[in-house]
Amino acid sequence: MSDRIGFIGLGIMGKPMARNILKAGYPLVAYNRTPGRGQELEAEGATLCTSPKEVAQGSDIVFVMVSDSPAVEEVVLGENGVAEGGRAGMVVVDMSSISPIVTKRIATKLGDRGIDMLDAPVSGGEEGAINGTLSIMVGGKPEVFQRVRPIFEKMGKNIVHVGENGAGQTCKLCNQIVVALAIEAVGEALVFAAKSGVDPAKVREALLGGFAQSRVLDLHGQRILERNFKPGGKCKLHQKDTETALSSAKELGVSLPGTALVAQMWNALAAQGREELDHSALVTVLEEMAKTEVRRKWGNR
Amino acid sequence: MSDRIGFIGLGIMGKPMARNILKAGYPLVAYNRTPGRGQELEAEGATLCTSPKEVAQGSDIVFVMVSDSPAVEEVVLGENGVAEGGRAGMVVVDMSSISPIVTKRIATKLGDRGIDMLDAPVSGGEEGAINGTLSIMVGGKPEVFQRVRPIFEKMGKNIVHVGENGAGQTCKLCNQIVVALAIEAVGEALVFAAKSGVDPAKVREALLGGFAQSRVLDLHGQRILERNFKPGGKCKLHQKDTETALSSAKELGVSLPGTALVAQMWNALAAQGREELDHSALVTVLEEMAKTEVRRKWGNR
Repeated sequence: MSDRIGFIGLGIMGKPMARNILKAGYPLVAYNRTPGRGQELEAEGATLCTSPKEVAQGSDIVFVMVSDSPAVEEVVLGENGVAEGGRAGMVVVDMSSISPIVTKRIATKLGDRGIDMLDAPVSGGEEGAINGTLSIMVGGKPEVFQRVRPIFEKMGKNIVHVGENGAGQTCKLCNQIVVALAIEAVGEALVFAAKSGVDPAKVREALLGGFAQSRVLDLHGQRILERNFKPGGKCKLHQKDTETALSSAKELGVSLPGTALVAQMWNALAAQGREELDHSALVTVLEEMAKTEVRRKWGNR
Repeated sequence: MSDRIGFIGLGIMGKPMARNILKAGYPLVAYNRTPGRGQELEAEGATLCTSPKEVAQGSDIVFVMVSDSPAVEEVVLGENGVAEGGRAGMVVVDMSSISPIVTKRIATKLGDRGIDMLDAPVSGGEEGAINGTLSIMVGGKPEVFQRVRPIFEKMGKNIVHVGENGAGQTCKLCNQIVVALAIEAVGEALVFAAKSGVDPAKVREALLGGFAQSRVLDLHGQRILERNFKPGGKCKLHQKDTETALSSAKELGVSLPGTALVAQMWNALAAQGREELDHSALVTVLEEMAKTEVRRKWGNR
């Protein structure tokens, strides 16, 4: 017997993810705080609910894809939340990117009611959500992961069970730490090249063949050369994740000096009103500091 | 008619690079400041000289692979140097990693004597030198690059002509900026995971499938998990290149905040007596700050 699926949060990421579940033939009940967002999915066969509680009442596995830790706490544990409509044996799968520490707390509270939880944040952006090619980093019990895995496979390609509850969120923060510093690295290198009078496109090409190779150098490096800062992954979301990493690091007793530096770069971007751009726009802070711009076929200083 | 090849600097990198030229059938005259270093190559067919000047007298293309900017200036422009033994139409190819600004100065001085120069620093370490798989980043005139290219192909695989003199060294510094910050990024992520009680090996695996993918996460991440800090690329060489990038940045008017931070990490490594280890040992500074260690199957805090 197939599990009935609930989906809460039909934003830029949530809607295409829910659609991929629906397309795969699962019955789907859905909820979004702003009601208009669900109409398309309703036309495609989903049943819209008026609260997270109602979603929980009508489903066996409830996916949550909302903006931040308080939003997850509200839809799961708040008034008319998932917990109120849930029952023992149900699974809550939080695919939002939130604090691993908050995640453990929510998982414990759900566990007290016999409700299992997975944290399963994603990487890959809107494009990955639409194409069903997200990376999904999962924390929680192995048997619960196995139960949900077939549905994850409708949304993503690289699906890794990292460890117990919170491990998925920790892994996502690790991802964001690495990507943020990789953008900083590529930005510093390309600005240095440009101001040296060396073609940054040639530098990117040369570096892709050696130890400096990375997906960020490839994709974000190309965006920087093309001045294409249409998101993709927004600066303000990366800023949020960076702040979560830093507050978690403080609580855990870990020093993240590079991440702290990039947090200041996001702050500069926000101050300059560019927080809605793709996170590769981090380079513009470095460009303004150096009074230069990274362009293909840069001629001279 | 084949060019006669000279090679100056038969250290960890220079010796296997010279050997690959010799193996390809080129006549080779060679020089090393410490005389013993050349004996093996002599047995394999090279002719040893007693000065860089003598190397220049006996060859048409002179490769230089020494430790730093002063060493290159000395062997090329100093007493009994290459310039003294050179003549118009000769080419000096400096494969050392040195300052792009010093490089331009040397190229100008050689140019005054009708001697062409290429700057052609490499990436790929001792292993790449032995296997002939180095990345080679070349600055200088296109026609000179074309003349030397067949010999580069005996030493490397990814050979890119980046621009005019100095562009190869600039590109190498860009490479070192990106790799240093990538190691910092992977180090911060894996230490964060370990102290969170999450298996860093699982995090590496999950991240390799997404935007965080990089050769550093793959290779250096694996070294960190295995505590394998046998070089590879030594911290002290990466420290030298980082300092060159920062002094060039000051001269050019570029701000490299992330690179400046990593420079402080190299300083800490040196203070702790670990500057001879592989540059992935950068993670040990982060580990000491957090009083933890990155290990596979990390159980708890």
